[in-house]
Amino acid sequence: MRISELAEVTGTTVATLKFYLRRGLLQPGRTVTRTQAEYGAEHVDRVRLVRALSEVGGLDLAAVGRVLEAIEGPGLGRLDVMATAQHALSGGRECDGRDCESEGESEDLLRGDARTRDWIAARGWQVDLRDVALDRLAAAWSACEGAGLGLDEGRLDAYADAVERIATIDVASVPPDPAAAVRQVVLGTVLVEPVLAALRLLAQQHTAISQDTRSH
Amino acid sequence: MRISELAEVTGTTVATLKFYLRRGLLQPGRTVTRTQAEYGAEHVDRVRLVRALSEVGGLDLAAVGRVLEAIEGPGLGRLDVMATAQHALSGGRECDGRDCESEGESEDLLRGDARTRDWIAARGWQVDLRDVALDRLAAAWSACEGAGLGLDEGRLDAYADAVERIATIDVASVPPDPAAAVRQVVLGTVLVEPVLAALRLLAQQHTAISQDTRSH
Repeated sequence: MRISELAEVTGTTVATLKFYLRRGLLQPGRTVTRTQAEYGAEHVDRVRLVRALSEVGGLDLAAVGRVLEAIEGPGLGRLDVMATAQHALSGGRECDGRDCESEGESEDLLRGDARTRDWIAARGWQVDLRDVALDRLAAAWSACEGAGLGLDEGRLDAYADAVERIATIDVASVPPDPAAAVRQVVLGTVLVEPVLAALRLLAQQHTAISQDTRSH
Repeated sequence: MRISELAEVTGTTVATLKFYLRRGLLQPGRTVTRTQAEYGAEHVDRVRLVRALSEVGGLDLAAVGRVLEAIEGPGLGRLDVMATAQHALSGGRECDGRDCESEGESEDLLRGDARTRDWIAARGWQVDLRDVALDRLAAAWSACEGAGLGLDEGRLDAYADAVERIATIDVASVPPDPAAAVRQVVLGTVLVEPVLAALRLLAQQHTAISQDTRSH
């Protein structure tokens, strides 16, 4: 199909597709004439994926590019898959931690604050203490405390119990084929997040309603 | 303190504070002279809250304004608190559902798609079927399917089991005082989200590592 048809099928515009092509987010079509290219089903899939990552997943286009690179990279072991996924994602979000400016120079620096690392140790989680997810946890945790939400170690543990179940489902759904695994982990991390957020709003509503019903 | 000190204490700039004042996100100081106002601890708290909601919570400034309005509103029952929280948040995020354009005109319209409503009914969740969270769930679910993540009803149920535990913690942490409750629910929904996302990345890593260790 032509680029105008690709735009129509995917519900976007030719200008947007040309922008994706320039940014390398969409692979070039097969050249037909000097001014015309032919696009196929793989282009439809790619445009939908780019839009899902940016609109549903909330990634900026630089992060979308890193995610696409990660899922097209060479096959990796399961741990490398996790690392690739987290790397693709971590660069794309804003960083509130104090270590952000020195990122890159300080690969060996421990991430997060002491309290966060203590909590991780007490919980017995085996994680890379240089992972930026620790910075993110530390920043988010102190934002909750700053807002007076009373999120202490105990409540964080209770949340972590529930989140471990989510992670178990995530990891169990990773297929054995390495290339498919990268795709599953990277996209699963970005695209399942909004599913979980919507489920949380609905579950809160259900829980509050059923408790109110029981108390009357 | 003067506005320049308020900027220093909160790690921001006078220009940003003046912008917050114009947008009504920061309450005016006590007028001292015609060109000078005095700010106190409540202003420090407010500036930190606005920054936490926008930087950690990822809300745009319009959504920050709605959240502040919600937490300053009159006291409400617990269900109204939930509704207020969800309303303050739902308007602030981008909407991918097909019903978005008609939002406002179509208050009575059922949200989400048929499959999402069927799944909710099968699960036995008591929720308002006009809630935009249903649209969000439907959009996020089909984005996962469009990306070939194999998120079927069964896996969604497994996620929902875990998320119900999160929601139970959320609801249990709501204080009995109505004004404090609104604050807790609204801020908890926005600010705990990044905590859960960071925990998920770390829990995935821990789960993958401990499974790899066991299988060797």
